Amino acid sequence: MATVERLLHPMHPKADDTGNKVTVVGTGQVGMAAVFSMLTQGVSNNIALVDVMEDKLRGEMLDLQHGCAFMKNARINASTDYSITAGSKVCVVTAGVRQREGESRLDLVQRNTDVLKIIIPQLVKYSPEAVFIIASNPVDILTWVTWRLSGLPRHRVLGSGTNLDSARFRYLLSEKLGIAPTSCHGYIIGEHGDSSVAVWSGVNIAGVRLSDLNPQIGGEQDPEQWRRMHQLVVESAYEIIKLKGYTSWAIGLSLSQLVGAVLSNANSVHPVSTYIKGQHEVEQEVFLSLPCVLGRGGVADVVRQPLTAEERARLHASAKLMHGVQAGIHF
Amino acid sequence: MATVERLLHPMHPKADDTGNKVTVVGTGQVGMAAVFSMLTQGVSNNIALVDVMEDKLRGEMLDLQHGCAFMKNARINASTDYSITAGSKVCVVTAGVRQREGESRLDLVQRNTDVLKIIIPQLVKYSPEAVFIIASNPVDILTWVTWRLSGLPRHRVLGSGTNLDSARFRYLLSEKLGIAPTSCHGYIIGEHGDSSVAVWSGVNIAGVRLSDLNPQIGGEQDPEQWRRMHQLVVESAYEIIKLKGYTSWAIGLSLSQLVGAVLSNANSVHPVSTYIKGQHEVEQEVFLSLPCVLGRGGVADVVRQPLTAEERARLHASAKLMHGVQAGIHF
Amino acid sequence: MATVERLLHPMHPKADDTGNKVTVVGTGQVGMAAVFSMLTQGVSNNIALVDVMEDKLRGEMLDLQHGCAFMKNARINASTDYSITAGSKVCVVTAGVRQREGESRLDLVQRNTDVLKIIIPQLVKYSPEAVFIIASNPVDILTWVTWRLSGLPRHRVLGSGTNLDSARFRYLLSEKLGIAPTSCHGYIIGEHGDSSVAVWSGVNIAGVRLSDLNPQIGGEQDPEQWRRMHQLVVESAYEIIKLKGYTSWAIGLSLSQLVGAVLSNANSVHPVSTYIKGQHEVEQEVFLSLPCVLGRGGVADVVRQPLTAEERARLHASAKLMHGVQAGIHF
Amino acid sequence: MATVERLLHPMHPKADDTGNKVTVVGTGQVGMAAVFSMLTQGVSNNIALVDVMEDKLRGEMLDLQHGCAFMKNARINASTDYSITAGSKVCVVTAGVRQREGESRLDLVQRNTDVLKIIIPQLVKYSPEAVFIIASNPVDILTWVTWRLSGLPRHRVLGSGTNLDSARFRYLLSEKLGIAPTSCHGYIIGEHGDSSVAVWSGVNIAGVRLSDLNPQIGGEQDPEQWRRMHQLVVESAYEIIKLKGYTSWAIGLSLSQLVGAVLSNANSVHPVSTYIKGQHEVEQEVFLSLPCVLGRGGVADVVRQPLTAEERARLHASAKLMHGVQAGIHF
Repeated sequence: MATVERLLHPMHPKADDTGNKVTVVGTGQVGMAAVFSMLTQGVSNNIALVDVMEDKLRGEMLDLQHGCAFMKNARINASTDYSITAGSKVCVVTAGVRQREGESRLDLVQRNTDVLKIIIPQLVKYSPEAVFIIASNPVDILTWVTWRLSGLPRHRVLGSGTNLDSARFRYLLSEKLGIAPTSCHGYIIGEHGDSSVAVWSGVNIAGVRLSDLNPQIGGEQDPEQWRRMHQLVVESAYEIIKLKGYTSWAIGLSLSQLVGAVLSNANSVHPVSTYIKGQHEVEQEVFLSLPCVLGRGGVADVVRQPLTAEERARLHASAKLMHGVQAGIHF
Repeated sequence: MATVERLLHPMHPKADDTGNKVTVVGTGQVGMAAVFSMLTQGVSNNIALVDVMEDKLRGEMLDLQHGCAFMKNARINASTDYSITAGSKVCVVTAGVRQREGESRLDLVQRNTDVLKIIIPQLVKYSPEAVFIIASNPVDILTWVTWRLSGLPRHRVLGSGTNLDSARFRYLLSEKLGIAPTSCHGYIIGEHGDSSVAVWSGVNIAGVRLSDLNPQIGGEQDPEQWRRMHQLVVESAYEIIKLKGYTSWAIGLSLSQLVGAVLSNANSVHPVSTYIKGQHEVEQEVFLSLPCVLGRGGVADVVRQPLTAEERARLHASAKLMHGVQAGIHF
Repeated sequence: MATVERLLHPMHPKADDTGNKVTVVGTGQVGMAAVFSMLTQGVSNNIALVDVMEDKLRGEMLDLQHGCAFMKNARINASTDYSITAGSKVCVVTAGVRQREGESRLDLVQRNTDVLKIIIPQLVKYSPEAVFIIASNPVDILTWVTWRLSGLPRHRVLGSGTNLDSARFRYLLSEKLGIAPTSCHGYIIGEHGDSSVAVWSGVNIAGVRLSDLNPQIGGEQDPEQWRRMHQLVVESAYEIIKLKGYTSWAIGLSLSQLVGAVLSNANSVHPVSTYIKGQHEVEQEVFLSLPCVLGRGGVADVVRQPLTAEERARLHASAKLMHGVQAGIHF
Repeated sequence: MATVERLLHPMHPKADDTGNKVTVVGTGQVGMAAVFSMLTQGVSNNIALVDVMEDKLRGEMLDLQHGCAFMKNARINASTDYSITAGSKVCVVTAGVRQREGESRLDLVQRNTDVLKIIIPQLVKYSPEAVFIIASNPVDILTWVTWRLSGLPRHRVLGSGTNLDSARFRYLLSEKLGIAPTSCHGYIIGEHGDSSVAVWSGVNIAGVRLSDLNPQIGGEQDPEQWRRMHQLVVESAYEIIKLKGYTSWAIGLSLSQLVGAVLSNANSVHPVSTYIKGQHEVEQEVFLSLPCVLGRGGVADVVRQPLTAEERARLHASAKLMHGVQAGIHF
């Protein structure tokens, strides 16, 4: 009799289910930081990794598996075949190509759409009930593309959007005020990246609006020039990429937080890219970040923020721009 | 328009599911310590509490709900009606009456069986796929009673058994050796309580058996009298009840660990009360504690420990005794 | 050679320090819920318990110690002798007598002052650098008494105050809005209990003030009667005491959060009872709850909330009342 | 008055201390995975990062800081100047050069020694009470070099050693047995890497030795060829480096576990590289991995494992080899 049989008296075959399975597509810096955040923060203990690069995929899988004894017995699977993703509660897409020198934005979007055309139907096939979270850039447009390709209801598809921009903003507030970032409240909304909008009217500590203490805050006339803080947020990604070549930790943690909100059915509020036609008088079918209530079903509600005329105008400009790009995509 | 409607733009109705729902029956000291352990340790964030005492039940529910902001947004429901337990992944039973002065063991068992006759069919009705964990005493017999009443396959019903006795044993080893209890390995098996068996042959630190260093360990001839440690384990419950009136924290934590092993599908090994007919030459249909591999389906395997003749004899004596009591129960 | 010596080759004597030692005085329901919260939430793994009831104290210590294997190897000490508290970073005081039937508030305060006269000098003697957190009631007055007795600078003595009232308020907001309590922001300030003040102007979701959506909110004219929510907060403690006999879980979690903010030097904001003379035009030397920035040194800053005339008037009334009671205390 | 002054009423200057400060030298894949593990697992919330590459260092610091809101308000500092490391409780060294093609082992050791000559005195200067954990390779020799350079007592200097090899071994056992890695016990000791020793006699599940079930286990005659499992462990690092270019996650988690054992004063047992002259009849002043009891002071005890003649012979061979290399190093 083999050693295993001498050791164990079987009672029942082992199950695979954990109730919190997450698929991550893409084993680049963002995907791996997201996976590692989810595992170490206890958000999920059941990860399916998919990529087209077999070697990298297997290397990452082995490296994570060797750490299982340090992470509450997680199970890690990896394959180029999507069948391993079956039954995921959340699918996170971090895959995508990078902008080539001289490439137009539309060309980049088209190339990434072509990538998503392969990925999304496979994910939907194996996890038709999952919530989809897109992190690939340009995130707002690619979230719309995913929604289109997936055929899923709009509350089930969201983009990581400005959740990260807002975290950066809160960190800078925290540094300036000497207060923990978790106690510094502020939202960056709209388009992830250069055209994002800082909603200064809502920035508060313990419910005390900074704009009540400094009515010029965020504006050009502000003698303290707080608007510089939003500029720093916008420049952050570029600066980090220049310094270390890519961004990984903060975006990984941001994704882990969003996945955690969904899996634990928290109904907590996060600024993520969502379908906004009909809100703030946006008329186009586009996805932009607004504060959303996230739970097991995806986006349950969007918080109606009162915006200034200027804030709304910037949202509309983004919507128009994106709609134009979207119109040029071939499906 | 009401404030809520002004605030929220609805996208989709909220779901109730969290994938980790746990029902706890009984809001006594053991039940509440178990619930609080599960919530604070992040084992589950979705608890259904059932008891017959409406006031106590509502008081405990409110007290826990007020702490939700400190515990990752847990949801707590409580009712005398079992419909709130629907869809639980694990059902923990801590309810039961206490021994009256002069009452025989059989009489106590009968009274608790009568309580379980009400509880178990309701739990099975609403959560037919759940794993059942029994903590009510005498735990080994009541686990058998639950199994009988439930009609569930045997791997889905287990008793908290000697998981707590083993934790006490490991703590005492830890104190004696100056080593963390998580690095002191040792199992108490058999009947929970006075007749439990310390498996000295397996006690080890980093794989080094203490019985290789001291062949008399655990025996009467041992000049160092390590067997006293097992006596202290047996006396612990009595001592704590004498000192503070009941035991709560350690049994609550023990239950939280077992529920966590099931929910996370860990396949980790814990000494729990399981169906042991056919193992160690036990011929009766009884439940006693042996090291079990626990996962989403309940008990996946039982570890075959080599036992000494004396250890096996004590297991047989417990089995015979319990079988006798079981024969007298009226269903 | 003894078994232990055969097992271990000694390199260096073990240290006792963990850098996060916490003393809790009082093993009643509040003290034990606080200890258990701190241990299970990983806030501290080194607890010294003090009480005058030797049996209860030893019972609780043993029960916690038996759970050590489930809680990352915590160390738990307990004694009636304060020498075990030496070197604590935080001292939490939950001890105190309860109001007798017909007893005046001043008589109760005097009796509890007499208890603190014994406790506080001992704590200061053994942990002169600690932050002191008072939970005994009436908490605001007893925090002042502790400050007086301790001779410590005012930033090092604080009361649990309205941190719990605020958590209850956020839970009720959460229930009404269908949003996680951690995403519902609102502060109850002032006197812990009946005279507390809900600062409706600061209540917000994602920076959106409810008072901008409903200008009457919290007032008597409000057709939606949100002020009822504050009444429910005030009535909560009474209701739970009526239902289960005492409150424990939520206050324990509240204390665990405050201790965690101090130990991790978080600089997070919490409404706690602090020295407020000179703030909001309060002229008396009293402690009342305001949002405070908490870190390793205790209260680093108090957030200046803009209050309405009515809110300020209620704060002044509480200050005057408490100052009157304080004047009658014999030290 | 500036906005900050309008917002905050200061009580006391903020402290920097958290009681759990950790310095990590080296921002390569290993160093960053270790830092990220410590932060996300809550092992430390106060990290000082040191490297010579200013851009990379600043990029990693910013990326981590932007994630602070997701990680309990951690503080992250980074500089090429060691003054930021002052007061660390643990210093982790991951810096070092890689082997050049054709370079001899001794040449590599000499180059890394030259790197440590700069690093170690600076660390000791600013954190004279810290425990030092070395992860740079060849780890056993460089731990000895660090000990020599530091002038610290030997219990305060340890190498990550075979803690990772053992985790890989436990993962493979886990896969074979269908049991959680945390329930599969087994130690790899000796030299980290090719010459490591699997102590088959101690491999056990629930105290049941596999060698009692299969006396040939680990040997060449074993029909089941379990020894292949140890070969896979040895080959792992090479395989992962071939597949993804480097190893990171598992070694990062291993370091996080060791740092956590020290900071929490756990006295838990881990196989780490320690001063072993005088143990197992080793006569040279070398560092090799044996199961050690780790606490706030570093290595408190070494567990005396009974070794077979062959196991001891391999340990002696490693000791001799390393001693030879050490003799050629220029300080």
